[in-house]
Amino acid sequence: MHSPHAPARDDAAQTAAAVLDLLRTSAPRVHCITNAVAQNFTANVLLAAGATPSMTLSGEEIGAFVAKSNALLVNLGTFDRERREATSIAVGAAIQNGLPWVLDPVFVDRAEQRAVYARDLIFLGPKAIRLNHAEFSALAGAAPSAGAVTAYARAKKTVLGLSGATDLIADGAKLVTIANGHPLMAKVTAMGCAASALVAACHGVESDALRATAAALIIVGVAGERAAANAHGPGSFAVAILDELHTLDGPTLIAHARTEFAKATE
Amino acid sequence: MHSPHAPARDDAAQTAAAVLDLLRTSAPRVHCITNAVAQNFTANVLLAAGATPSMTLSGEEIGAFVAKSNALLVNLGTFDRERREATSIAVGAAIQNGLPWVLDPVFVDRAEQRAVYARDLIFLGPKAIRLNHAEFSALAGAAPSAGAVTAYARAKKTVLGLSGATDLIADGAKLVTIANGHPLMAKVTAMGCAASALVAACHGVESDALRATAAALIIVGVAGERAAANAHGPGSFAVAILDELHTLDGPTLIAHARTEFAKATE
Amino acid sequence: MHSPHAPARDDAAQTAAAVLDLLRTSAPRVHCITNAVAQNFTANVLLAAGATPSMTLSGEEIGAFVAKSNALLVNLGTFDRERREATSIAVGAAIQNGLPWVLDPVFVDRAEQRAVYARDLIFLGPKAIRLNHAEFSALAGAAPSAGAVTAYARAKKTVLGLSGATDLIADGAKLVTIANGHPLMAKVTAMGCAASALVAACHGVESDALRATAAALIIVGVAGERAAANAHGPGSFAVAILDELHTLDGPTLIAHARTEFAKATE
Repeated sequence: MHSPHAPARDDAAQTAAAVLDLLRTSAPRVHCITNAVAQNFTANVLLAAGATPSMTLSGEEIGAFVAKSNALLVNLGTFDRERREATSIAVGAAIQNGLPWVLDPVFVDRAEQRAVYARDLIFLGPKAIRLNHAEFSALAGAAPSAGAVTAYARAKKTVLGLSGATDLIADGAKLVTIANGHPLMAKVTAMGCAASALVAACHGVESDALRATAAALIIVGVAGERAAANAHGPGSFAVAILDELHTLDGPTLIAHARTEFAKATE
Repeated sequence: MHSPHAPARDDAAQTAAAVLDLLRTSAPRVHCITNAVAQNFTANVLLAAGATPSMTLSGEEIGAFVAKSNALLVNLGTFDRERREATSIAVGAAIQNGLPWVLDPVFVDRAEQRAVYARDLIFLGPKAIRLNHAEFSALAGAAPSAGAVTAYARAKKTVLGLSGATDLIADGAKLVTIANGHPLMAKVTAMGCAASALVAACHGVESDALRATAAALIIVGVAGERAAANAHGPGSFAVAILDELHTLDGPTLIAHARTEFAKATE
Repeated sequence: MHSPHAPARDDAAQTAAAVLDLLRTSAPRVHCITNAVAQNFTANVLLAAGATPSMTLSGEEIGAFVAKSNALLVNLGTFDRERREATSIAVGAAIQNGLPWVLDPVFVDRAEQRAVYARDLIFLGPKAIRLNHAEFSALAGAAPSAGAVTAYARAKKTVLGLSGATDLIADGAKLVTIANGHPLMAKVTAMGCAASALVAACHGVESDALRATAAALIIVGVAGERAAANAHGPGSFAVAILDELHTLDGPTLIAHARTEFAKATE
C-alpha cells in the first residue's frame, strides 16, 4: 500500500501501467501521417502495443479516417506535397472532432523549410511534440535542458517529449524524467517515429497530455531494455521490441521503469 | 491411394500442395499495386513462397510491367491519386493480356469513397476478392456467412476469399472452408495484404480461381500456425512466417491443412 | 607480415576492413532516393553498418539534404514523377557540391523507359553503378563478363559493381572479383538496393571509387554468409544480416573475404 508520501516515481510508472492496460482493452484507433520509411514498423509497434493503426494519406478520405480515430500522429519524415495536403485536412478534422494530435518534427534540423512548417503546425495546438535533441535545438533555438523544454512547453501550451539518454517530458508546470531505453534503439530506423505514434496512441486513452506522453516513452523505453537483453544486434533488436511490447504487462513495467516526477524548475 | 470416396478435404489440401510446387518451379511474376505499409512485407512473402514480385506505380511503365507478369494484385490500402491512375492502366493491361487480377478492398468499411471505388473495380472482373468481415459487410451490405459470400460471388461472377477464424472461399457454386491460421496474424501489419498477394501469385500458376484462392489461404494459414509455434510475439512471428513459407513443402501442407470442400448451400 | 609480394587478394579485403572502420568512426550521411519497398531495409542496413541515412524526396528540401550529406544513392526502383524530379535536383546538388553519387538501375530490363532514363543519368557521371546481370545486359547490350563490364566502365568513365554468384567490380583498368554471398540474399526484397546504398556510404569515406565499391560488396557478402549460417529461411536471414553488419569487424572481414584484385583484361 502506498502512503500519501509514496515517492513521485511510482506515479508516472503506475500511470504508464494503467495506460498500457487501456491500450490493450480499448484498442484506440490511431491515424498516422508518417514517412514511408517508418510506416510498416510504426504500424507493427502500434499493433504490438494494442492499438489499431491506419495510414492513408489521400486527401479525399483522410478526414473520414481521422474522424473515426481516437488520436492522430503527424510526422514530417518525408515532407512531400501529398503529406502536407493530408496534414492540413487531418489536423483540421482532429480539431473539429476534439481529437488529440501529436507532432514529430523529424529532421527540422536538416532543412529550414521543415522548421518553418513545424512552427506553423505547433501554432495549431498539438497535444504533444516528441523530438530529439537536434530537433529541439532547431525549433526552440536553445540547447535542450529541463529548463528549456519547460519554457518551450509553457510558451507553446503543449507537452514536450524530448528523447535522449534521459527522456524529459514537460508540460510547463511539471517534469517527468525517464532513464530507460538502450543504445540499440538509435540503430533501428523509425524507432523514434514509432515512439511518437505510441505517444499518440496513449493520448487516445489518457486525456492528461503529460501522463499520456510519459506513459508512451516509459513503455517503449522498458520494452527496448528488455529487447536488448536478448538481441544480437539491431536486426534481432527490432524484432524483439515488438515481442516485448506485445507481452509487457503492468507489474513488469512498474518494476523496470526508472522515472521521476517533479515540479518543473526553470 | 485415394478411393473415389476419398473425403473432399483432401482435394483442397492436395491442390494447395500442387500449387505450392508450381510457385517454386515456375516463380510467377506478380505485379502488386499495394499500399506503402505493405510493400516490403508483401514482396518478402512472395519471394519466400517462390514468386517474383514487382511494385512500380508509375503510369508510364506499369503497363509494361503488368504485360510481362503472370498475375496482378490491386490493393486499396493507400488510396491516393497515383495508385488510382496506376490501377486504371494496370487493370486495363491485365484484361488486354488475359491475366488474372485479384482485388483486396482494404478498409472499404472506413471511408465511403473506397467502397464506391471498389465496386467500380469489381465491375471490371477480378478473378478473386480477398477481404475481411468488416470489408465484406461494407461491400455486400450483408453480414458475412457461407450463404452471403456465395450469393455475392455468384452475383459478381468472381471468387470471394473471406478471412476470419474460419476462412470461407466461394465461387457461387462451391465452397471451401479453411480452419488454419493463428491470432498473431492479426497483430502483424499487412498480413492480409500479403495473403492477397499470394492469392494473386497462385492465380499465376492455377487457372481455377476457387482452387487458386483456397490454395493461397491454406498455404498462409498453415505457415502462420507453424510460425506461431516458435514465436514469442508478433515481431518473431512475422520473421518466422517468412521462414515457414520458404521451407513449407507439400506433404507438410497436406498434413496440417484443416480444410473442407463442399457444394455451396445458399 | 606482408611481403611486397603479398597476394593482391589482401589488398581488396584489407581496404574493405579499413573502409568498415571509417563507416563506424565517421558515420557518413547518405541521402537515398530509393523505392518505397526498399526504404526501411535500406535505412536499417546503413545504420547497422555505421552510416546515417536520410530519405526525403521532396523537391523543396532534397537539395539541402544532399548538400549536408557525404554521398547520394539514386535507385530507380519505383519510377514515379516525384522521384524523377527529386533525382534531377539531388544529382544537381551532388555535382555542385562535389559529392559522390551511385546509381542502382533497378529493373531497367523490365521497361524501356527506365533504360532510357538510366542512360541519361549515367551521362551525368555517377561514381559507381551497382546492378545485376539482367540489368547490365539491358543497359550495355552485352552479356555480363569481366571484359564487358570493363569495357562499359571504361566507356562510361565510371565503376561497375555487377552482383552475381561472383561479383565483378571494374573501373576500366582494374578488376576485383568477390566470391562471397549466399543464395538467401536473393530471397529478401531490397537486398540489392541496400547493397547499393552501402556502396554509396563507402564512397562517403573512401575516394577511390573501385575500392569503395568493392569494399561495400565484400562487407555485404561476408555479412550475408555469416547471417546464413544461423538463419532458418529468408525471414531470419534478413534479421541476421543486420546483426552481422553491426557486429562485423575488420579481422573477421579479412578472414572471410574471398576476393581477387587484378588488372582488367578485355
